[in-house]
Amino acid sequence: MAVGLDPPRNILPIAGVRLSVAEAGIRYVGRRDLTLIHLAEGSQVAAVFTRNRFCAAPVLVARHHLAEGPGVRALVINTGNANAGTGVAGLRAAEASCREVAEQLGCAPGAVLPFSTGVIGEPVALAEKIAAVLPACVAGLAEDQWEAAAAAIMTTDTVAKCCSRQIEMDGVTITVTGMAKGSGMIRPDMATMLAYIATDAPLHGAALQQCLREAMAQSFNRITVDGDTSTNDACVLMATGRAALPPVTKATDPRYGKLRDTITLVAQWLAQAVVRDGEGATKFIPIRISGGYDEAECLRVAYRMAHSPLIKTAFFASDPNWGRLLAAIGSAGVDDLDVAGVQVWLGDTRIVRDGARDPAYSEAAGQAVMVQEEIPVRVDLGRGAAEAQIWTCDLSYDYVRINADYRS
Amino acid sequence: MAVGLDPPRNILPIAGVRLSVAEAGIRYVGRRDLTLIHLAEGSQVAAVFTRNRFCAAPVLVARHHLAEGPGVRALVINTGNANAGTGVAGLRAAEASCREVAEQLGCAPGAVLPFSTGVIGEPVALAEKIAAVLPACVAGLAEDQWEAAAAAIMTTDTVAKCCSRQIEMDGVTITVTGMAKGSGMIRPDMATMLAYIATDAPLHGAALQQCLREAMAQSFNRITVDGDTSTNDACVLMATGRAALPPVTKATDPRYGKLRDTITLVAQWLAQAVVRDGEGATKFIPIRISGGYDEAECLRVAYRMAHSPLIKTAFFASDPNWGRLLAAIGSAGVDDLDVAGVQVWLGDTRIVRDGARDPAYSEAAGQAVMVQEEIPVRVDLGRGAAEAQIWTCDLSYDYVRINADYRS
Repeated sequence: MAVGLDPPRNILPIAGVRLSVAEAGIRYVGRRDLTLIHLAEGSQVAAVFTRNRFCAAPVLVARHHLAEGPGVRALVINTGNANAGTGVAGLRAAEASCREVAEQLGCAPGAVLPFSTGVIGEPVALAEKIAAVLPACVAGLAEDQWEAAAAAIMTTDTVAKCCSRQIEMDGVTITVTGMAKGSGMIRPDMATMLAYIATDAPLHGAALQQCLREAMAQSFNRITVDGDTSTNDACVLMATGRAALPPVTKATDPRYGKLRDTITLVAQWLAQAVVRDGEGATKFIPIRISGGYDEAECLRVAYRMAHSPLIKTAFFASDPNWGRLLAAIGSAGVDDLDVAGVQVWLGDTRIVRDGARDPAYSEAAGQAVMVQEEIPVRVDLGRGAAEAQIWTCDLSYDYVRINADYRS
Repeated sequence: MAVGLDPPRNILPIAGVRLSVAEAGIRYVGRRDLTLIHLAEGSQVAAVFTRNRFCAAPVLVARHHLAEGPGVRALVINTGNANAGTGVAGLRAAEASCREVAEQLGCAPGAVLPFSTGVIGEPVALAEKIAAVLPACVAGLAEDQWEAAAAAIMTTDTVAKCCSRQIEMDGVTITVTGMAKGSGMIRPDMATMLAYIATDAPLHGAALQQCLREAMAQSFNRITVDGDTSTNDACVLMATGRAALPPVTKATDPRYGKLRDTITLVAQWLAQAVVRDGEGATKFIPIRISGGYDEAECLRVAYRMAHSPLIKTAFFASDPNWGRLLAAIGSAGVDDLDVAGVQVWLGDTRIVRDGARDPAYSEAAGQAVMVQEEIPVRVDLGRGAAEAQIWTCDLSYDYVRINADYRS
């Protein structure tokens, strides 16, 4: 079902990052539901997490370990259970999982970050199930296991999401590889469902943090499937520093921009892949708003459109129902919007000129864009120089089916 | 399909309010799509309209006539075409419609308020079509035509929405009768789709305005079907003053409260009827938030829940998926919410206690509530004394079908 999204290929390993997957039987039997990532000594890690107040136990533990721990050496990720809404028992389970991993890998429990995704609010014997398969999982750690890991972290995803990019810098090849999962409850706020991006570049400290923040702002914080913000969202950026370059510790380093841009490209590809694989998605819809006073109002209009069930169902029906687009733009909270200055395009076809139907527009022209799998929407608010772009998908019968059936 | 909503019965006429309907063939042939309301001389009228910046031509004209005109004597309402996004031509059509009505009724064009609902952005020869059937429509004006009018203003509604209430005041019987239409693009902002409430009470000036404002705040501004705000929303309160009582001109009048409460009851019944007839609705869901710091944050949490596609599809599936409820509460923008203080009930069954699953809760108990047609949700935020209630419905296959098919 995913829109224009192929399974991963040509994924490049990252020196210093080893991965392994296992069947822990957390919710289903015979399914790979456990992923372990081991980082070489000296690796630097930054992460952002959901802002949902009901954040999951592993989010609380991972935040704590990042802030107070001795430096991250391992990540343990399970699907099948989000360990959210599980109270004190959930916190203990997340901490116990870290201890099990630490024991197997010979590091401190605080050097392990736990991640969970799946159904919310179900109690589960997480640590016990993980412990049972950990020895085999550790034995399988290898640098070429990204595809397997990308598949093992999936829940309602239909396609594994993983990609790589390389650049040359001072004669040295730098590699970035990332993977992500998520297709529902997607409207990340400073983070996504689960995403892991690694590089062998020597990004350190403040530069690493800023790089993650900037990459997020142009990727996972610019997508929405259903406007729902998960309890478990997390995005991790790992830099092993194995590439033979002196460390990049500050954003003012002349090499910073190129590294950030490459990491942003990977993050953007993954974020778009999450939308392309949005629950029930049949259309991929980039929405670009220009001519706003500031980026905030451009985003407000963009998300208003992306969250409108009427617009999403019209896209599903390939119906160029531009009245619904106008209604969403007009109710996005831009109180002094002069509608006479608004232009709207579907692809290259202008449908609204100066706030009303473009006299040159024909339903046939709109229809020709709407039948495509990818439908770029562009709105010019005609009141400033700011712009912003987000990505979303349509709302189909299958969205309802998937979410009406998910727990039963 | 409407949830627990019967066709209108026992509708009481309002002295001084005559109504008539006709087939003007605006979009479909053989369908009553035109409604005329004529008010006796001396009637007082207040109205609120959509805040959508892309408001329709009739909204602009009606606002202008209300503010600058000689006092309202007639309302003309068409379905089939919203006359929105139609630019200058649309404005002219709305004004011409008022002139036609004024000529037939012998009043000033500024004494006529136009209302349109239906597809957005389609040009239409509105005034011509209305003019052709006006003479017969005027000839049919009568006080007992509320049911016919309530049916004629429907679009995707499946049931006509009309109700009456009576009270005694100083030995005089006061009657309030109202009708409304709307089932999609419903998240009114200071107004609803189209609602008309009339009374023979002698409400005047400031008291009438305040009464409308207060009634709206507890009815049409507390509902949502899909979070989309229409371009044409309007609610009109008409007071003919034919009941033999001295005028009520101020909200400090001791009779004001009782009149307002009766009008609010009618408005609330109509608003809830709109939700019960929400597009594809199979469940009617009152959401009450208590224990908030202020009403605004209670409403933020309530609407966040009511707009969550994941919650709406879970209700459709009769699935007590309380994890989705928590995720919505946690991401409603109450940044300092202490989740440990949160309680959640489905009907009388507490599912969340102190931020986690109530140990006494069983899936069977939750299921027993969820299979009902009406599912009251209650959340206590545990941080203050404010509360608020809204009404919404679920998201079903039929919602997608209706909105994917509407224009085709």
